[in-house]
Amino acid sequence: MVARTLLQQALPTTFGLKAAGWMTGLDEAITRLIAVETKRLAVQLGGAGGTLASLGDRGPQVVRLMAEELGLQEPTLPWHTDRTRIAELAGALGEAAGVIAKIASDVVLLSQTEVSEVRDTAPDRGGSSALPQKRNPVAAVSAIACAQPAPQLVAALLGAMAHEHDRAAGAWHAEWRPFSELFRSVGSAAAWLRDCLEHLEPDLDAMRRNLELTRGAIMAERVAGVLAPALGASQAQELVRACALEAQSSGRPLADVLATRSEISDHLSIEAVAQLLEPTGYLGSAGLFVDRALEAHRVGRSAPSPASG
Amino acid sequence: MVARTLLQQALPTTFGLKAAGWMTGLDEAITRLIAVETKRLAVQLGGAGGTLASLGDRGPQVVRLMAEELGLQEPTLPWHTDRTRIAELAGALGEAAGVIAKIASDVVLLSQTEVSEVRDTAPDRGGSSALPQKRNPVAAVSAIACAQPAPQLVAALLGAMAHEHDRAAGAWHAEWRPFSELFRSVGSAAAWLRDCLEHLEPDLDAMRRNLELTRGAIMAERVAGVLAPALGASQAQELVRACALEAQSSGRPLADVLATRSEISDHLSIEAVAQLLEPTGYLGSAGLFVDRALEAHRVGRSAPSPASG
Amino acid sequence: MVARTLLQQALPTTFGLKAAGWMTGLDEAITRLIAVETKRLAVQLGGAGGTLASLGDRGPQVVRLMAEELGLQEPTLPWHTDRTRIAELAGALGEAAGVIAKIASDVVLLSQTEVSEVRDTAPDRGGSSALPQKRNPVAAVSAIACAQPAPQLVAALLGAMAHEHDRAAGAWHAEWRPFSELFRSVGSAAAWLRDCLEHLEPDLDAMRRNLELTRGAIMAERVAGVLAPALGASQAQELVRACALEAQSSGRPLADVLATRSEISDHLSIEAVAQLLEPTGYLGSAGLFVDRALEAHRVGRSAPSPASG
Amino acid sequence: MVARTLLQQALPTTFGLKAAGWMTGLDEAITRLIAVETKRLAVQLGGAGGTLASLGDRGPQVVRLMAEELGLQEPTLPWHTDRTRIAELAGALGEAAGVIAKIASDVVLLSQTEVSEVRDTAPDRGGSSALPQKRNPVAAVSAIACAQPAPQLVAALLGAMAHEHDRAAGAWHAEWRPFSELFRSVGSAAAWLRDCLEHLEPDLDAMRRNLELTRGAIMAERVAGVLAPALGASQAQELVRACALEAQSSGRPLADVLATRSEISDHLSIEAVAQLLEPTGYLGSAGLFVDRALEAHRVGRSAPSPASG
Repeated sequence: MVARTLLQQALPTTFGLKAAGWMTGLDEAITRLIAVETKRLAVQLGGAGGTLASLGDRGPQVVRLMAEELGLQEPTLPWHTDRTRIAELAGALGEAAGVIAKIASDVVLLSQTEVSEVRDTAPDRGGSSALPQKRNPVAAVSAIACAQPAPQLVAALLGAMAHEHDRAAGAWHAEWRPFSELFRSVGSAAAWLRDCLEHLEPDLDAMRRNLELTRGAIMAERVAGVLAPALGASQAQELVRACALEAQSSGRPLADVLATRSEISDHLSIEAVAQLLEPTGYLGSAGLFVDRALEAHRVGRSAPSPASG
Repeated sequence: MVARTLLQQALPTTFGLKAAGWMTGLDEAITRLIAVETKRLAVQLGGAGGTLASLGDRGPQVVRLMAEELGLQEPTLPWHTDRTRIAELAGALGEAAGVIAKIASDVVLLSQTEVSEVRDTAPDRGGSSALPQKRNPVAAVSAIACAQPAPQLVAALLGAMAHEHDRAAGAWHAEWRPFSELFRSVGSAAAWLRDCLEHLEPDLDAMRRNLELTRGAIMAERVAGVLAPALGASQAQELVRACALEAQSSGRPLADVLATRSEISDHLSIEAVAQLLEPTGYLGSAGLFVDRALEAHRVGRSAPSPASG
Repeated sequence: MVARTLLQQALPTTFGLKAAGWMTGLDEAITRLIAVETKRLAVQLGGAGGTLASLGDRGPQVVRLMAEELGLQEPTLPWHTDRTRIAELAGALGEAAGVIAKIASDVVLLSQTEVSEVRDTAPDRGGSSALPQKRNPVAAVSAIACAQPAPQLVAALLGAMAHEHDRAAGAWHAEWRPFSELFRSVGSAAAWLRDCLEHLEPDLDAMRRNLELTRGAIMAERVAGVLAPALGASQAQELVRACALEAQSSGRPLADVLATRSEISDHLSIEAVAQLLEPTGYLGSAGLFVDRALEAHRVGRSAPSPASG
Repeated sequence: MVARTLLQQALPTTFGLKAAGWMTGLDEAITRLIAVETKRLAVQLGGAGGTLASLGDRGPQVVRLMAEELGLQEPTLPWHTDRTRIAELAGALGEAAGVIAKIASDVVLLSQTEVSEVRDTAPDRGGSSALPQKRNPVAAVSAIACAQPAPQLVAALLGAMAHEHDRAAGAWHAEWRPFSELFRSVGSAAAWLRDCLEHLEPDLDAMRRNLELTRGAIMAERVAGVLAPALGASQAQELVRACALEAQSSGRPLADVLATRSEISDHLSIEAVAQLLEPTGYLGSAGLFVDRALEAHRVGRSAPSPASG
């Protein structure tokens, strides 16, 4: 399929590599969430001011038993005014929201009528109250909408870390709604993205059609690269650029324009050019990267959970 | 010294416990920053669209050599559009800013003319252009000012994670200034806090004076706790509350008011009350918590750096 | 051209209406900025604590003269700790950034290789270091990138409004960098957008081509609307929806599928259907709205400036 | 009472001026909210894509009638993707939150046990479950807590302004929860602040006591100002600064230290110094500013509402 940069067709890639990038992002967000869950969720018990004075000398013992009972870590100190745990959990949730937004945004862009490279196949999905023909990518749109407020909710929690003295005069209470909203935001976004991906169907014909849309121009980097040893990198780049722009403005295939330039035909036969312009021959390490991503995913999944390790 | 909750005097604590809380927050923020530095800073090289096609089949090898050369991790995949690494670094910086803001805010509150429990002893510090008598807690104020925009800068970076397709049309470039500003914000805040803490001098007389400001009322929890077995927790609490309010409105010591109530004097002699109202006898596990914090700090410091481990 | 909702082709509109929407947004943002400039920029002079005591009884006179000298408003009170003026200026800048981001984002989407309805004609613009064929919509992308951090900078300023007492202990100083960054963000975004719009060229052929991409399906609302009186709104909608989906999956024109359904052909001749499916006949009030927007723009431009009025 | 800058005692002011500053901030926030309410709340009706095509040529008439029916403005254009109205309402709410946070924060600081210059007299308010003596400034703390997330919610709305094309693919839906939360945040904060201010009682004795806390040092600016003509501004400032610091470190009244310096006693008699150190004689334009603020408040209140004007 086409790789797109700045929303312009750039060069060929594979759907596998795109999906591997999505998976890797999700895996990293999950890894971080699990790390916070297993290492940073600790019981908080400090009494009225952090000394546990009302429990006499049994304070630490009570904390330990309470931690065991709740399946939480036992902290070094009561942490009522040390909000690093909240900050790390919020940060991990914000990271997850960003990954979800990236994937869902790609799906929406690939679903555009003019692109049509993926389709949400969930039954009875995406109809419009007004427009009979519409099949809106509802799950992806909902994932974007749910994830979008997350960064500000993270900022609200980070901005509330300056708890005054031994219990805050407002900053603590200011955490409650943003924290709830953050879980709601990221949890809903994740649920919508799962729904979206479970019903996502790539359209291979559309991918191939879009690869051919520029009549070879997306292969320009490769042609310039092959000509560079003979012509010099800069001149090769300039020459192919001129041909690509001429092909675009005239609507002719890049191969035809290239064939009219003797600087090129001196070095490349028509057959050689035709072979160079075949997208499947210019996928670089896409396949290897996919293998690596799958391997990392398998290793991550089979790793003993940090909690039980 | 006095522990304060909602900016009201609450019960006794120690300056050591307060400082241990500051240290623990800083240690946690540092631990997180080191974890991001050692595990999540990876080289990014993916070519024009993430496939490294222009490098033929040598792409991964170039990535590996480049990572070695730069002392960075080698990633599973090119990560130009997977911003989890940026998000985690931003989150760790935001966490550090929050810890700094908490400590600096405590220092400013303790420096208030009416509280005066700490003083910034840096020479020629804190004069005012207009007010000859002023000794402003400049380092702490500057730390607060520098740290304050950090949460929003983190949000700007989290909100820019949805990179379109294989290179973003704006979101990538939108990271640059907020990212620079975030380093500047947290770095400057940290430098000011170090300056502040290096010159910070506690005023033990003022601490003792403030402990006595309520004429015993900050010990009310302890009195109620001692009476609870005999009177019932709720009734003891009500009774001591009434005495504390009466002491406050009349300006009399709590001990005197308590002595007028037979429900109390039946159970507690004047000497017993006097002993109960001594703040140093009601510090709970403050000392133990300080020992624990110092031990955790020592262990953290001597741990082999994750990078060299 | 095609109107798109949720990034799906929806129904016809005109480029004029789209541009009128852009203009109206810009006009509203400009109106708000001018209102803040003319009504809310006031001199601030209050002395060390807001009483102007050091000026004896000449304080207000000095304030008035200073306001005249600087061409600023004279405030009711010194406003060192009342940051509503900053908040309103920040809000107006944030609003402008949002309008700019919307327009630039539309331009980037319309510039996609697969859509190609507009083109940035600035000479020597948008080349790629690697990809010879690229013509990136650089001005629009830069406008997006510059505008994107603005909301967080506004939040930083709103979040710094709680100045303590008579001069803040950090919140005031915390305004400086975000405020500078906000001007830089919005000013740069505006400059890039002006550049973008000055060089923007619509491609009418591409617009017509995209209108025909769905082979009539974007006219489905109109067909359903015409059938509604005879069939009932709900049944007409269902019927046309079924036809649109069939047309889409089979790749046949909507007209052909409609012709196969007797419920439709009973009410609409082939000629009537053909006429209904002509996009230029279903533009609603687009033309009127454009006239209105232009009239409002002219009135706004010719209005006496609030400053000189 | 004492004016405080950077949370240090600075010079005298009046409670009236402080309260006038609060009132002015509230009046400005209210003025802005009313302006948005009366000028910027418009009906939105544009049909599926902004052309109102489904209403034939009656679109604008329907919009007008709908606006009348709902008591909303009639917009120039459908504004589904022009979010300036939302941005301005959000900005006005964020401004109000900032004003509320400033006032509530002052109340909390003035309520500190060590300051005690105001008291929340609401009955049965502010008790603590653990600490019998506590009278927490609950209303002010709640106002702070409710107002604190508002800036981020404003940012969430500003950040969602880039609606794609003719209806957004997520950004529109992303407004809903932050918008609701913003109303909840600011509405709750306003309700708590009203409660707080209705029950707020200044403690004049405490104010006088705190004025005397520095034994004259808060009058240092005045003394330096009077000596400046004779000694030069810079030398007068230096001299008084030295005396103020000596008074502070030795615990002696500033008057006594000043009397030991011949450079001062040459110019000022003991009686003259005593008079200079009287705080009520150094209030500058505080009274005039209060009068002005009250006048502006009266004018604002009696102004014909913009809606009915």
